[in-house]
Amino acid sequence: MLFKVDMTVNIPLDYPKEQAEALKATEKAYSQQLQREGKWRHIWRVAGLYANVSIFDVKDNEELHSILMGLPLYPFMEISVTPLCRHPSSVKDDDR
Amino acid sequence: MLFKVDMTVNIPLDYPKEQAEALKATEKAYSQQLQREGKWRHIWRVAGLYANVSIFDVKDNEELHSILMGLPLYPFMEISVTPLCRHPSSVKDDDR
Amino acid sequence: MLFKVDMTVNIPLDYPKEQAEALKATEKAYSQQLQREGKWRHIWRVAGLYANVSIFDVKDNEELHSILMGLPLYPFMEISVTPLCRHPSSVKDDDR
Amino acid sequence: MLFKVDMTVNIPLDYPKEQAEALKATEKAYSQQLQREGKWRHIWRVAGLYANVSIFDVKDNEELHSILMGLPLYPFMEISVTPLCRHPSSVKDDDR
Amino acid sequence: MLFKVDMTVNIPLDYPKEQAEALKATEKAYSQQLQREGKWRHIWRVAGLYANVSIFDVKDNEELHSILMGLPLYPFMEISVTPLCRHPSSVKDDDR
Amino acid sequence: MLFKVDMTVNIPLDYPKEQAEALKATEKAYSQQLQREGKWRHIWRVAGLYANVSIFDVKDNEELHSILMGLPLYPFMEISVTPLCRHPSSVKDDDR
Amino acid sequence: MLFKVDMTVNIPLDYPKEQAEALKATEKAYSQQLQREGKWRHIWRVAGLYANVSIFDVKDNEELHSILMGLPLYPFMEISVTPLCRHPSSVKDDDR
Amino acid sequence: MLFKVDMTVNIPLDYPKEQAEALKATEKAYSQQLQREGKWRHIWRVAGLYANVSIFDVKDNEELHSILMGLPLYPFMEISVTPLCRHPSSVKDDDR
Amino acid sequence: MLFKVDMTVNIPLDYPKEQAEALKATEKAYSQQLQREGKWRHIWRVAGLYANVSIFDVKDNEELHSILMGLPLYPFMEISVTPLCRHPSSVKDDDR
Amino acid sequence: MLFKVDMTVNIPLDYPKEQAEALKATEKAYSQQLQREGKWRHIWRVAGLYANVSIFDVKDNEELHSILMGLPLYPFMEISVTPLCRHPSSVKDDDR
Repeated sequence: MLFKVDMTVNIPLDYPKEQAEALKATEKAYSQQLQREGKWRHIWRVAGLYANVSIFDVKDNEELHSILMGLPLYPFMEISVTPLCRHPSSVKDDDR
Repeated sequence: MLFKVDMTVNIPLDYPKEQAEALKATEKAYSQQLQREGKWRHIWRVAGLYANVSIFDVKDNEELHSILMGLPLYPFMEISVTPLCRHPSSVKDDDR
Repeated sequence: MLFKVDMTVNIPLDYPKEQAEALKATEKAYSQQLQREGKWRHIWRVAGLYANVSIFDVKDNEELHSILMGLPLYPFMEISVTPLCRHPSSVKDDDR
Repeated sequence: MLFKVDMTVNIPLDYPKEQAEALKATEKAYSQQLQREGKWRHIWRVAGLYANVSIFDVKDNEELHSILMGLPLYPFMEISVTPLCRHPSSVKDDDR
Repeated sequence: MLFKVDMTVNIPLDYPKEQAEALKATEKAYSQQLQREGKWRHIWRVAGLYANVSIFDVKDNEELHSILMGLPLYPFMEISVTPLCRHPSSVKDDDR
Repeated sequence: MLFKVDMTVNIPLDYPKEQAEALKATEKAYSQQLQREGKWRHIWRVAGLYANVSIFDVKDNEELHSILMGLPLYPFMEISVTPLCRHPSSVKDDDR
Repeated sequence: MLFKVDMTVNIPLDYPKEQAEALKATEKAYSQQLQREGKWRHIWRVAGLYANVSIFDVKDNEELHSILMGLPLYPFMEISVTPLCRHPSSVKDDDR
Repeated sequence: MLFKVDMTVNIPLDYPKEQAEALKATEKAYSQQLQREGKWRHIWRVAGLYANVSIFDVKDNEELHSILMGLPLYPFMEISVTPLCRHPSSVKDDDR
Repeated sequence: MLFKVDMTVNIPLDYPKEQAEALKATEKAYSQQLQREGKWRHIWRVAGLYANVSIFDVKDNEELHSILMGLPLYPFMEISVTPLCRHPSSVKDDDR
Repeated sequence: MLFKVDMTVNIPLDYPKEQAEALKATEKAYSQQLQREGKWRHIWRVAGLYANVSIFDVKDNEELHSILMGLPLYPFMEISVTPLCRHPSSVKDDDR
């Protein structure tokens, strides 16, 4: 089941730089693990912003929730979730 | 070059049904042609809405503009365009 | 899988009254059929508005989409979809 | 009398973790007590967010106000209140 | 139980003048009947706008809903409903 | 001359509790004095929020301004002012 | 008593041109009469828009309401009203 | 050349009171100097808010910018700028 | 004096096609005349939208207003005007 | 390829003045270097605001992203990106 998730990251100006770098490294590892498992299908950077557009492929709402809550940068993020379906005009049977 | 395009379709209630169906068929053919050419990389339906989330892969802004202007349903659409880049956390070198 | 769906109905002032009444009757039958099947779990009227708050229990995003697209009053509605999960503070194991 | 209440929790990044955990535990006990009394009829987590959708069944506006003001996490919440009625299309006489 | 209701009236420019006048007369009679019954406690005009601020005193959400749905000008109105309580700083025990 | 004033109070989480209580006590006394003078005609709590809806009856804009500026909690408030008139459908000649 | 009033005029595209011209002429005469009486103190055009910023000097909210309701173009306007006071930094005692 | 400028002042709660008073005094002197020079034509207080509506008469955009940037309270202000023209319905040739 | 003007064009679906084409041709001629005179310095299409971003160089607000009011497509446009200055970081003395 | 970028700068009130000045100097040098390279085509100050409107001419989205991320004041900015094309009414073949 597919979801688009828009994430914008806001790390406060006075947040310790080292801690921020550590968090970003953990975030990257966490994201790449999920990408390899096929659950985080796509991640694109929004040009000019510290933000991304992601496509998740999960079993259900619960799994999506637990993946997002597990994001190391979650406390710094604004998140918006959009449930997706196959589009009847898609040339692919199962575009993920 | 990648762009996310969000499209919402609003066909007025009193628009002739047959014409609407004809337009939708042309729209579908137009979209599928571009999908086969690799320019319209993804199209997903937003659950519950007459709307889609699409990913385009085009040479430049001009090409994106001319593709969107050519949409048979363009006059009925609200469109929002977001330029995308590769995300540094992506496990793929070139996720399109 | 649960979804909250907020629906607001706007029938244009000049829409033929009889047709509107017929649509509303079909809508009611459609909704009640889904309620009896356990897919439309709750429907409440928003006080003072021609709007409702509904809870759906469906297999996946696709089923939700096809139920909503089948609403006889769909062309007159503004719809907003929110995916839900069990809340960790709920006293019920499976509140639907 | 039914009310939908949407609650979003924002605990500041620098709030002491232990205190936050203590508050959440008190919040859970408070919520579950009211659920058992039948006043907090439903609570669902919004997928991907630290937010919930709740249905309250109270005697009047005053009781709703005093329940919400009593929430241990109230100072950290954004709250929006929507008064509800039975929906004429509901198959239940008294859906709570 | 008290509710503030904000109503804004938008009668389309091409709506027949006589019908509009007839509706307004019925609206006035309807409002005054409810004022005399003590259910529509206050109605004030917003300066410069075709809009009012009203205070209703009703048994429950259902009664409020049925009063508002009965407004002759309801199809031309934007309505927003705010449930109210006694304020702890009020010098009156029961300000209605 | 009547004005509706909507006030929402936001006291920062780290504001000293005792000082907040002292301010609220002064606010209450200030409000009740003006209520007794007939200038602060109504004050209602918005259910579920630390907010009120108030009706003021003042000589002119200047007096309203100086009353609001004098609110002990003013620095913590969001305020919105709406000038009101007698409504032609009111059954009272002078509803204050 | 001073009020700033922002007015934006939207005459529908299919409104008969002659009627629109007649209305504008009446509007101008109405405005100039009130300017000469000292009630409509200032009127400025917003550059690039069919909109104005006006300052009214009236006895009370009622008078403002009745002046605005009398505007020949009122049914085509969006209006927003802001009550004003003398500013303590003004070099004039009575800037109208 | 005329501009309407809307200014809202937000001095943080924990800003030293003395410094704030000093800034306000400088602001007043700055404003009155420009009023006397005929560049700051009008300044009105918005009733109930720490905000003003001002009319500036300057040579060009540059002069407006440099005047606003020079405001002692500028760092605490939200500012919105609206270029104005003579209104064709004005009874004055040159209403400043 | 420079202004940024954002223009979005909305021609109603049922507007006669021929008339629309005629208007667009007049609009183009009008725009090109002003470009040649150096008053309409830049015009760019917004990718994917029937909208443009333009830079005008005019004597004053009045001239800008009269140019915009003269746009053949003005009645179909949403317009927003932003006064500009030379930027202190510009490498050009007079970037127009 | 052209992009309009709107930047608004918000340096917190308590940010050390010297550091802010140093950042602004680096920002200016960075901007001027890119202007000289022809990548940052235009930069204009928005009158009355600490904000600018800029036009970038870059190879692709990636280059735009990396330029914006490199802005010394980036952490203090709100940024909005709009992809542009040549406008069919432009008198220039290649207006950059």
